[in-house]
Amino acid sequence: MSGVFNGKTTGTPISLIVHNKDYISKDYDNIKDIYRPSHADFTYDKKYGFRDYRGGGRASARETVARVCAGAIAKKILTDFGINILAYTSSVGNIKVKNIDLSYINENPLKIPCKDTFKKATALLDNLIKENNSIGGTAYCEITGLKAGIGEPVFEKLDAMLSMAIMSIGATKGIEFGLGFLASEKKGSEYNDNFYSKNGKVLKKTNNSGGILGGISDGSKITINIAFKPTPSISLPQHTINTSLENKEIMIKGRHDPFIVPRAIPIIESMVAITLIDYILVNITKKIDCVKKAYLNF
Amino acid sequence: MSGVFNGKTTGTPISLIVHNKDYISKDYDNIKDIYRPSHADFTYDKKYGFRDYRGGGRASARETVARVCAGAIAKKILTDFGINILAYTSSVGNIKVKNIDLSYINENPLKIPCKDTFKKATALLDNLIKENNSIGGTAYCEITGLKAGIGEPVFEKLDAMLSMAIMSIGATKGIEFGLGFLASEKKGSEYNDNFYSKNGKVLKKTNNSGGILGGISDGSKITINIAFKPTPSISLPQHTINTSLENKEIMIKGRHDPFIVPRAIPIIESMVAITLIDYILVNITKKIDCVKKAYLNF
Amino acid sequence: MSGVFNGKTTGTPISLIVHNKDYISKDYDNIKDIYRPSHADFTYDKKYGFRDYRGGGRASARETVARVCAGAIAKKILTDFGINILAYTSSVGNIKVKNIDLSYINENPLKIPCKDTFKKATALLDNLIKENNSIGGTAYCEITGLKAGIGEPVFEKLDAMLSMAIMSIGATKGIEFGLGFLASEKKGSEYNDNFYSKNGKVLKKTNNSGGILGGISDGSKITINIAFKPTPSISLPQHTINTSLENKEIMIKGRHDPFIVPRAIPIIESMVAITLIDYILVNITKKIDCVKKAYLNF
Amino acid sequence: MSGVFNGKTTGTPISLIVHNKDYISKDYDNIKDIYRPSHADFTYDKKYGFRDYRGGGRASARETVARVCAGAIAKKILTDFGINILAYTSSVGNIKVKNIDLSYINENPLKIPCKDTFKKATALLDNLIKENNSIGGTAYCEITGLKAGIGEPVFEKLDAMLSMAIMSIGATKGIEFGLGFLASEKKGSEYNDNFYSKNGKVLKKTNNSGGILGGISDGSKITINIAFKPTPSISLPQHTINTSLENKEIMIKGRHDPFIVPRAIPIIESMVAITLIDYILVNITKKIDCVKKAYLNF
Repeated sequence: MSGVFNGKTTGTPISLIVHNKDYISKDYDNIKDIYRPSHADFTYDKKYGFRDYRGGGRASARETVARVCAGAIAKKILTDFGINILAYTSSVGNIKVKNIDLSYINENPLKIPCKDTFKKATALLDNLIKENNSIGGTAYCEITGLKAGIGEPVFEKLDAMLSMAIMSIGATKGIEFGLGFLASEKKGSEYNDNFYSKNGKVLKKTNNSGGILGGISDGSKITINIAFKPTPSISLPQHTINTSLENKEIMIKGRHDPFIVPRAIPIIESMVAITLIDYILVNITKKIDCVKKAYLNF
Repeated sequence: MSGVFNGKTTGTPISLIVHNKDYISKDYDNIKDIYRPSHADFTYDKKYGFRDYRGGGRASARETVARVCAGAIAKKILTDFGINILAYTSSVGNIKVKNIDLSYINENPLKIPCKDTFKKATALLDNLIKENNSIGGTAYCEITGLKAGIGEPVFEKLDAMLSMAIMSIGATKGIEFGLGFLASEKKGSEYNDNFYSKNGKVLKKTNNSGGILGGISDGSKITINIAFKPTPSISLPQHTINTSLENKEIMIKGRHDPFIVPRAIPIIESMVAITLIDYILVNITKKIDCVKKAYLNF
Repeated sequence: MSGVFNGKTTGTPISLIVHNKDYISKDYDNIKDIYRPSHADFTYDKKYGFRDYRGGGRASARETVARVCAGAIAKKILTDFGINILAYTSSVGNIKVKNIDLSYINENPLKIPCKDTFKKATALLDNLIKENNSIGGTAYCEITGLKAGIGEPVFEKLDAMLSMAIMSIGATKGIEFGLGFLASEKKGSEYNDNFYSKNGKVLKKTNNSGGILGGISDGSKITINIAFKPTPSISLPQHTINTSLENKEIMIKGRHDPFIVPRAIPIIESMVAITLIDYILVNITKKIDCVKKAYLNF
Repeated sequence: MSGVFNGKTTGTPISLIVHNKDYISKDYDNIKDIYRPSHADFTYDKKYGFRDYRGGGRASARETVARVCAGAIAKKILTDFGINILAYTSSVGNIKVKNIDLSYINENPLKIPCKDTFKKATALLDNLIKENNSIGGTAYCEITGLKAGIGEPVFEKLDAMLSMAIMSIGATKGIEFGLGFLASEKKGSEYNDNFYSKNGKVLKKTNNSGGILGGISDGSKITINIAFKPTPSISLPQHTINTSLENKEIMIKGRHDPFIVPRAIPIIESMVAITLIDYILVNITKKIDCVKKAYLNF
């Protein structure tokens, strides 16, 4: 709606509107006075003293469309800079991806990079739908082509800000970089990534750190794992309370995805892209001779 | 140095200085031109084009003294508000704490809440010191007494900001809330925390979500696990490069902790405390009638 | 479009759209390649290397509709808190308002609080329209009912932030508080506002400081004068350059207000209102016992 | 104390301490319970409910030493970039500087660029000291060498942020750019700065706008006038109240400057310098091809 003229950005904020057409208020009448388990109904009521119980509230995943719009622009810029971001579904319940075939990610609706795993996962999800249940899963994300030196040294470490960005996506329950939790079981001699140089390039024999040292990118691949809880909306009977604090049983109606990770994949990529753009803008202000040259040639 | 007068804060920033007396520049001369593996030497050089190789730089854990100073003040306020933060070492390598005895945390230098585990861990660490090696581990942190309604709904979710705060501590490699990565293997019917009410109180049958729903505290205990990599400074020979990109072997001298989690415990508590204070200040501005009352009675 | 449900705000951002219907792109074709004198055409080109020359750009006063929308909400809240903001046109060229009749402000299109001055100003403006010219003027703004204690002590003094807010309105060239520039000619014995108390109230014999001491409100009326330059768009021939840096003559066509201060009146009130709301939200976090009470009763 | 190593900044915050040695607490005992007229004693008490009445509080001009420290570094950078900031005393009471001799500014303690005016002002100040009184004045500040294109288009216009920065200095009562308040009396045909070009350079026939168009620098000289109130501390008897709201008479003891503008000159220059540095850092992120080049060559 604004910010672009003759095919170029003008410096004015770029604004887009996505109208929420797939939204029927009366579908939500039955949850008006009741708190769905593991949903944000209760906490929103506590925070604001008032809740918009209809489907367009900010606790809905519909909120993430704005993240993906911004991410699409950020990714265009990053690609032009030689930086690529790739995410995929790495597990469905306890079915984990083994043999990675990146070309398969966009060939299946679950965004799994492996045909066999996709088939197993599909069978599992078919059963879950039949039993009105849902399942958790994990996603993997990698950043390639990012130069060394990106990230701030103290509170705004690259892994800290990526954690904030990704953990702000609904249903996330954990995040790790490089070896992650497995690093906690390693000895220094096993874990440390030894440097070596070849043809004037700085390389590492391993990448257990996942591409970040001291909160700053080291030029190697940045690797991230993210845990997602199961979809909270299930059609099995559950115990809960209503807004008068009476104990109730609830059965959530309507069609709900039994597995949300595939929908989170573009959101993860978008949040990473937005975060990296911010870092790059900050980073070019870090060396005074770089600033001087940029100012004089602006 | 400022901000306190007659035993009360004045509104002026509270400033303290901790002089870095335990610091001998020449100890660092041997690492002046060489990049220690899994240290930030290389990335700082790439970021700033210049590195203060002496022991007082910001990639040193000495930086965290400021966090603990601020955290001490934040914790005093939170305690007065009925909010408590407790962290401890929950594993050393693959030795995990089993039987929790909170009273034992401050009885041992490893901050482990279990005498047996402490003994096993001590034996492991004694061996590691002998072999000039180090080990990773995990910490656990819980917040009790926090009212429901704290946290922001979109980008600044409570788990997002706690992730940023904690992942900004050096050597962290992962963080999870509630069941965390285990949640990714659960069905909705297993994972969902069912509400019930008793004597006018809102309670949950389980706390798999770790006290946060939709990025906002739900009034139950907030539970966090954090992974730490092994201390990168080990005295075994390692491969690396120098600033001229020549391949070198390095043996890091001096006394280094083989295990850093105990030192991170007060830092975790401090970062959580600082984050919660910020949220509380923001939160009291969220209901207009609360703002009006506060303004008129200020 | 969002943020309000059942007549109440929900905590979600309140969004409105004002479509720019009164906008004909081809009217602007003649200024596509030329820099209008005292307009932002040249500086925008220098800043962004690219300019949207059509009438909807951000250098247009159309931008201020967003400020007035936000200000309308802010003023509703402030009125409920007992705080009132009033602005009017205080001079047109060198015709200055003498006898103030506040009830007349909304009775005339120039927002002048004086019938005689309005008549004189109208005669002046009629002549200016005939000669295709324009004129500058001043506005006055006062805040009544604001409690003492609002404002921050160092960089974000109340007068500093009000200056920023008001000087961000296009065409402003100066701002002053209380006696303003006249204060520079006074002796301390003439200028100082002496305190006295009556019936338990703190009062001042004069209000030369305009209600702000040390950057913080003192409970008396806050008084502000603002200078506006003449409308830059005039239909007289002017010298200028085009984007190829060739010297050119320009005659700006179309209907343009010869005097912009009346249109700035609601914008000034809005910017003041937005600024005060921010201060009040910040201020209720300044005393720890006030924070504690607000948190516990939230 | 930090941030500099081997004569270069390291990226770590540069910290300095200026110990407040010229400070005798008991000198302030007599104002412990009384509010000095036109001082911030009363408003601080209202804001914080508590006041550090000794001479080191933040309402003291001692606070500005930090601004001058930061400004000294900012000015070094700006000078290297070809940008110069110059401020001087332009009036003492109603004695205004006429014939400007910039070389004289640092030859006299009043920072006046005119020997005659300095003599007249000195005579005036000598009399004021005898009568225990003080006087207001104005300062002028100009920025030369700043490229066109610096400043943000909406809320953070260059004049808006400079206003905030300068109006945050204690004792300021007004600020204006270019013709300032005089612009309010001008016709468009008199005020508008006509562009012309010569030898490929963009020039203006006049500079009534003071170098800023639409909130963005136009490459010509930026000119600012600032009004200061008289020193509030005078030794004449004044009416005031004490903290128990009793009416009292006060005579402020001790040596106080009868005229504060000369002390404000380096503070003005510093605040302008700090503000410009921020703008330049922001500005180099405004064109994507400039960002790309800076990132790739970082």
